Parts: sequence; C-alpha cells; structure tokens
Amino acid sequence: MTHYITRLHAAIRTKQNPVVVGLDPRWKQLPPDVVAAARLRTSDPAAQQATAFEEFCRRIIDVVAPLVPAVKPQAAFFEELGPDGVAALARVMRYARQQGLLVICDAKRGDIGSTAEAYARGYLAGADADAAAWSADALTVSPYLGRDTLEPFVKVAVERGAGIYVLVRTSNPGAASFQDIADTRGRVFEQVAGVVEELANATRGDEPYGAVGAVVGATYPAELAVLRKAMPHTPLLIPGYGSQGGTARDVASAFDGEGLGAVINSSRGIIFAYERPEYAGQFGVAGWEQAVEQATRDMIADLQSARQ
Amino acid sequence: MTHYITRLHAAIRTKQNPVVVGLDPRWKQLPPDVVAAARLRTSDPAAQQATAFEEFCRRIIDVVAPLVPAVKPQAAFFEELGPDGVAALARVMRYARQQGLLVICDAKRGDIGSTAEAYARGYLAGADADAAAWSADALTVSPYLGRDTLEPFVKVAVERGAGIYVLVRTSNPGAASFQDIADTRGRVFEQVAGVVEELANATRGDEPYGAVGAVVGATYPAELAVLRKAMPHTPLLIPGYGSQGGTARDVASAFDGEGLGAVINSSRGIIFAYERPEYAGQFGVAGWEQAVEQATRDMIADLQSARQ
Repeated sequence: MTHYITRLHAAIRTKQNPVVVGLDPRWKQLPPDVVAAARLRTSDPAAQQATAFEEFCRRIIDVVAPLVPAVKPQAAFFEELGPDGVAALARVMRYARQQGLLVICDAKRGDIGSTAEAYARGYLAGADADAAAWSADALTVSPYLGRDTLEPFVKVAVERGAGIYVLVRTSNPGAASFQDIADTRGRVFEQVAGVVEELANATRGDEPYGAVGAVVGATYPAELAVLRKAMPHTPLLIPGYGSQGGTARDVASAFDGEGLGAVINSSRGIIFAYERPEYAGQFGVAGWEQAVEQATRDMIADLQSARQ
Repeated sequence: MTHYITRLHAAIRTKQNPVVVGLDPRWKQLPPDVVAAARLRTSDPAAQQATAFEEFCRRIIDVVAPLVPAVKPQAAFFEELGPDGVAALARVMRYARQQGLLVICDAKRGDIGSTAEAYARGYLAGADADAAAWSADALTVSPYLGRDTLEPFVKVAVERGAGIYVLVRTSNPGAASFQDIADTRGRVFEQVAGVVEELANATRGDEPYGAVGAVVGATYPAELAVLRKAMPHTPLLIPGYGSQGGTARDVASAFDGEGLGAVINSSRGIIFAYERPEYAGQFGVAGWEQAVEQATRDMIADLQSARQ
C-alpha cells in the first residue's frame, strides 16, 4: 500500500507547489450560470443546490487539476443540504481523484473507539479510491476526546495508505480559548502537537513524514514556526492563507529545504476569485473559471516568491 | 418557537424517566432476521447495510417510543456506508420524531464561523422537523476550536428551538489526555464547562436550563458531581452507562430534585440486549425486540431505584 506521504510528495513534486484548493461551495456566491443550469434540472431546492455545488466543484477541479496537488472539500456545506448534498460530495471527491488530485476531506471528525473507526473506514480511502464510501486521501480529525480516540484513525490510515490531519492550532480568532490553556508541559495545542509528532514518527516508515499530520493556522505565524520545529516528522495542513489574513511570508517557515512538509489551503480566495476586485474587472462573472485559474497561479507565485 | 428544554422536559415528564436509547447499528451484531430481509431487497453491499440499519432502528424506535423521551443516533455508523447510509439516517431521524421521540444526533461536529453555521443549519431542526435536512432536536458539538466556534451553533439552536450538547468530559479511558491539562483557572474540561454554563444561562429564557448542554461521561462520577454543581443551568447528556461501565449510582448526582437536568444514554446495552446473558436465554435471537424492551424497562427501573 503506497504511503500517503509518498503520494502527496509525488503530487507536490509534479505540480511544483504545495497549494490545496478548498472546495467550500456557498449558494449565495455561486456564479449565475451554475445556478441557472441547476434550476433547469430540478425544482427541489436541496437537489438544486446539490446539483449546483457539484457542477461548481467539478468545474473548479477541471481548472486546478493541472496546477495543484490537492483539493480540500469542506463537508459542512454539503451536509447542510442533506442526503443530496453528501451524495454530491462523494461524487466530487471521486471526480477529483479521477483528475489526478489528492483529496483532503475537511470534516473534523472525532469520536471514541469503534465509533472513531467507523468514521475512519468511511472516509479514509487512501491509496485505493474504492476502499471507502467517501474517497478521501486524508481526513481532518479533532483531538478533544483524547489520544486513544486518535488511534483508530491512525490504524485505518496506515492500513490504507491514507493520512489524517489532527487539529492542533486552528485559524479562527478564538483558537486560544481552550488551545492556549497551559500547564508545566506546555499549552494544550503544544501537547496535542507532541502526541501528533509521536504518531507521525511511528507511521512514517521510510518517509521523512508520517501518515499523521497537523492542522496549523496560517493566522498564527509565530506558533507555526515553533510547531514546525517541534514536529519534524509531521506533515502540516495550513488553512487561513488569503481571505483569513495569512500571507506567504507567514507560512514560509512551514517548509523544509525541499519545499516539502506542508500544504497551504486557500478556499474563498480562489473559488470565488471572480468577486475579488483584482480579478472582477479582468474576467467578469462569465470568466469565473479564468479568475479561479489566475488566483491559483497567483497564489503559487506568491508562495514561491516568499520562499526565495 | 418552543424552547428545546420545554420540549425535553415535557417528554421526560410524560415518560417519567430520563433515558436516551443510542442508535448505534453495527452490521455484525444485527439480528439475523433484519440482515436476511435486507439481503432480499438489494444485492449492493452498502445499500444492503443501509437498508438493514434503517429497519433495525425503526423497529427499535417502535419498541422504545412509548417508553423513553429520546433517541441518540450515532452518525458515524451511517456515514461509514456512504450516501445510502446517511439517507437512511435522515429517514430514521424523521421516523423517530414522528413517533414522538426527541432526536439527539451524535455527530460531534465543530468548525469555524460560517462553516459551523452550515453544520448547525443542516442538523438543528429544533421545534420544526422540516427546518433542517437532518431532523435533530439537538446535536453534539466539539469545543476544541474555541468559544467563537460554538456561537454559530448557539445562534441557530436558539432560533429554531433546538439544543446542542458540547463535549466537556467524554466517557473514554483516554479522556484525560488533553481534557485534564490544568492552569490556575482549572482543567480544560472545567474551563469548557464554564463557557458552556455561561451560554446555557444566556439561552434559557424562562426555563431552568439553557439550550446549550454538556456531554459528561458516566464513567467519571466524581467529575460529574462537581460539574453538575458548577453548571446549574446546563442540561447534561450522559453517555457511558451500561456497557461502558457507568452505573445508576454513578449518574444519580446529575439530576435536580425533580429528576430533571440530565438524560442518560445507553446504546449497545439496549439495542443489542439480545446478546447479553441476562436476556439471551429468556428471549432468544428471534425475541430481540422483546430484549430491547426489557433492557429499556430495566434501565429505567435501575435509574429510579438509585435516585430513591
């Protein structure tokens, strides 16, 4: 079974960048042509939105598949629509893999024992897209319940050549409320990081990084630099670039000398680039896919310039 | 919009007990008649399991609806099956409400900002079963990301007469690994409890308890007693009774003088009662529904005796 990191690094080397495009479809921001097409196909509101979300994501995948190594669908927006929505999510994930992208499913799951294992088996397809109902290469996981609840995810990830990214330092303004509680061994997020690094090191095999990664927000660059050093075998998934305020300079410390060790996500800044002043004039609403392409290329260039 | 607690308390008073039956279908433990019927209907493995899960849960609901106030479906087991599974979950939730049960969806969701709100809008139907794609009266929520990420759930819960139960002290053996990290203001779970109590008090209106509750495991009775006192306006959802080792005596401290303030969940101990030595002989495999009924009645009696 090919290791998650083997596949991730191959994709990063092929595409020559560490960009992950976040698939966060929001009904009110969808381009009018996508909405109009969905309205022609069905009158049921949930089915209409699910159809539009799927079409929107497929067209983004078509644009970004040649450019970036991975996409990160956000489960919440699909789940909000009910069964139609999550069926669309499953098809989007499958389609992204068919187009050569790795899929990091952002669902922040977590539970105890055999329940955690059910989530793991349901989402972590890993090297074989058919191994799970939702074809993720990797899944985001919440650590609140404790170390023992991470282990079922780790076990399934290793078995299937999949990865997990454990929430360590999230990108939201209130991340500190519980993550910063500290005892003599450090803050909560640092102690979570310690456990994650142990699991990463234990699951890396011949790879420099393990199958267990960490989510660390670009919005906390000082913590990111410290965590990168404290977690030398942990692959990082970094949200918060762009719309949330994180810059290329903020995330530069996340990479090793080969430009590996981290992937940087942007969602709204890319998928709704047609609404941004710098692209709106050039491409217009009808050119929303060109705006997606340009925003992706600009993010790639921005990250490259900050590393030099 | 009728407050969640108004509806919960009405149900507890009508049924005269605080028992929640956890719907955790596991394929290998399903009664043979349920599996056989599903196999006749479809040959696709995922559809077969989803069909069996739905049938199993509906028949449990038929048995327990006259006896208890609520059921707690565990999303993970349905999600593992993919779109067929979660479509079955949606129907099970709807059916439970039609039979007069409250539905606490155990999905342990959590995310930031508008993403959290998407989860909230997708699951928290509240007083109107049609208000969300998944018809939950209440949803379990993870606090790791921070206080600001609970607020979208609170907002939607209040708008819709729904409830949330925030993970405070979970029932698993490794709960302490991050929940017990302590600074001068207390341990992590105590600080989460402090935030939850504030939110509960702010959302109770004319009720003694708020729309924001806490998950506290029956397997930590000392912590439960302390948390009950520290969170006087917080309704508790208590897993861990029965199969996980929690006893009626362990949870007795969770209730106020009227027997309100907490609901106690049992999953495996009730739904797979036919496998337990004390019921297997009496009912046999064919009598699995009678075993469900007897185990439910026994749990109700057990909780009552411990409170006297």
